[in-house]
Amino acid sequence: MKNINIAIDTLGGDNGLVTVVKGAVTGVNQNKNVYVHLCGPENAIKKQLSEYEYDKNRIIVVNATEEITTHDHPVEAVRNKKDSSMVVALSLVKDGTCDAFISSGNSGAILAGGQFVVGRAKGVKRTPLAHMLPTSKEPSLLLDCGANVDVKPEVLVQFAKMGSIYMENVVGKKKPTVAIVNIGTEEEKGNALVKATIPLLKECKDINFIGCIESREIPNGKADVIVAEGFVGNTIIKLYEGLSKMLLKEIKGAMMSNFSSKIGALLIKKSLKNTLSRFNAREAGGAPLLGLKGLVVKIHGNSKEDEVISAIKQCVEFVEKDVNGKIIEGIAEESKEETV
Amino acid sequence: MKNINIAIDTLGGDNGLVTVVKGAVTGVNQNKNVYVHLCGPENAIKKQLSEYEYDKNRIIVVNATEEITTHDHPVEAVRNKKDSSMVVALSLVKDGTCDAFISSGNSGAILAGGQFVVGRAKGVKRTPLAHMLPTSKEPSLLLDCGANVDVKPEVLVQFAKMGSIYMENVVGKKKPTVAIVNIGTEEEKGNALVKATIPLLKECKDINFIGCIESREIPNGKADVIVAEGFVGNTIIKLYEGLSKMLLKEIKGAMMSNFSSKIGALLIKKSLKNTLSRFNAREAGGAPLLGLKGLVVKIHGNSKEDEVISAIKQCVEFVEKDVNGKIIEGIAEESKEETV
Repeated sequence: MKNINIAIDTLGGDNGLVTVVKGAVTGVNQNKNVYVHLCGPENAIKKQLSEYEYDKNRIIVVNATEEITTHDHPVEAVRNKKDSSMVVALSLVKDGTCDAFISSGNSGAILAGGQFVVGRAKGVKRTPLAHMLPTSKEPSLLLDCGANVDVKPEVLVQFAKMGSIYMENVVGKKKPTVAIVNIGTEEEKGNALVKATIPLLKECKDINFIGCIESREIPNGKADVIVAEGFVGNTIIKLYEGLSKMLLKEIKGAMMSNFSSKIGALLIKKSLKNTLSRFNAREAGGAPLLGLKGLVVKIHGNSKEDEVISAIKQCVEFVEKDVNGKIIEGIAEESKEETV
Repeated sequence: MKNINIAIDTLGGDNGLVTVVKGAVTGVNQNKNVYVHLCGPENAIKKQLSEYEYDKNRIIVVNATEEITTHDHPVEAVRNKKDSSMVVALSLVKDGTCDAFISSGNSGAILAGGQFVVGRAKGVKRTPLAHMLPTSKEPSLLLDCGANVDVKPEVLVQFAKMGSIYMENVVGKKKPTVAIVNIGTEEEKGNALVKATIPLLKECKDINFIGCIESREIPNGKADVIVAEGFVGNTIIKLYEGLSKMLLKEIKGAMMSNFSSKIGALLIKKSLKNTLSRFNAREAGGAPLLGLKGLVVKIHGNSKEDEVISAIKQCVEFVEKDVNGKIIEGIAEESKEETV
């Protein structure tokens, strides 16, 4: 069994270092081949670690004196805070010490740091941010969720390939279906980018392309991998979050509005909870930034221990199945086709 | 009081001619200055009309022998089915007989027909489709919902102006706030189109521009008028519809899953219904296609009598407040500024 080294940024999340360290310890105890490199204030991390039982060889503390906060300007922070927990952790992936990186910190800084510090894998034009979207069926993988804007058709084709490889190997979905977000299901619809991308996706033999998807069909789980330009993908992921939150709040408000509705709410609480847990982002793992030299995983700012554990599992699958090797291979084939 | 002439397409909706005629009769009875021109199969319309009491002078039947169905190709249908109820009704706006047009038929054909048959008002570059979005506060007006793609920054500025004028005059919101959809609230974020549009919106004195809005904030009613490029707007409106429907279905499923949850559902039914009625598209009126020589209103394919009535009221406000005159004036000022 291959050893897997994961660099974890202990700072920047809403729930502090304690939560991250606790999750990392559990992750190490659950995965015998995992080595975790905890980056951040050495003393605080060690103090926290002293409270747990674990294999001492498999948790390495890497001191970092600075912190990138949510208020920092992403690009400037990555450039100037060289001794921040985030940049130190990213550097461990860059120099090959670690295979993967996990952070619940500043999203923009993670995206910028992934591209500038870790760097793109060979042949990758742009690195998309992918998100697992809860649907009424299985979750779908949406990419790009906003790491890039104004891209070319060939870039979207690479996103489709990377998404398929990730979905098949990390999530375990065989021959995942791929669709592109469009404003109609007919191919003649759409903007110039989508119209130019559709024929390229059809020609691409490595993916199971099923055509266009209108956003209204996304919640019904009509495709396993959903490709979108970053501006559109970002709009989808944020509306998904905002609208679900607003509707559930309104429904909760209705349930609490009078005496009989409160009794009613008590009676349906359990089955409603079961239903809604499927829509819980926490269980779907983190959002991977694909196409880099290592795996960069962004977890929610308010991540709890569970998210850290599931992100570690995600990294294990990613490394064991050699997803990066497959991505580089898939993209090299494309270059071969181009030169023929 | 000015007479208002409205051309209504009686065919193409899911609920048939009977529903449209019934709504039109009620609309005429409720608005003393409204004249309705019912376009479609003369005999069927007259037969239906014979069942109601109304001012005979104010409902005119205009025979049309063809129908544009949802399966028709929009542009071809408008071009080839000259004697369809939709094209006949649109022609009444074009030749000045009517001020406004209402249809529950083929959406694409309404957009194409609005642009090709009715034609753009003077100075208007593109005609946006606007939708009222339910939010946790007041509804917001989103435009463009997909009538145009790949537009220029100046076009989005015109959309912002038209949306403001519509919101202030038809919906009655004083000095409506205007925001542009972006992937961050900071101005340096976004794609090339949005970055180029922001300074123009800031300079525009006729609107109350408040900056960027991320899609996650749209359901919270953060802006009265929300401007987006057509591809993005279409993605938002369709995801709004699809996600709300899916979540409510899942919640309903949870309520019906066992005996105690069913009892609970009965107890919260009334307050839940009150809450959800705010999110009911039926009460928000139809979707106007703005910037044409007359008002073109698209109502849902499955519209009932109520939607026809509220669309008629919408047309009345539009004409009485001279929204088109204000749009043409607002845009003419812009041309003046440009030539200075």
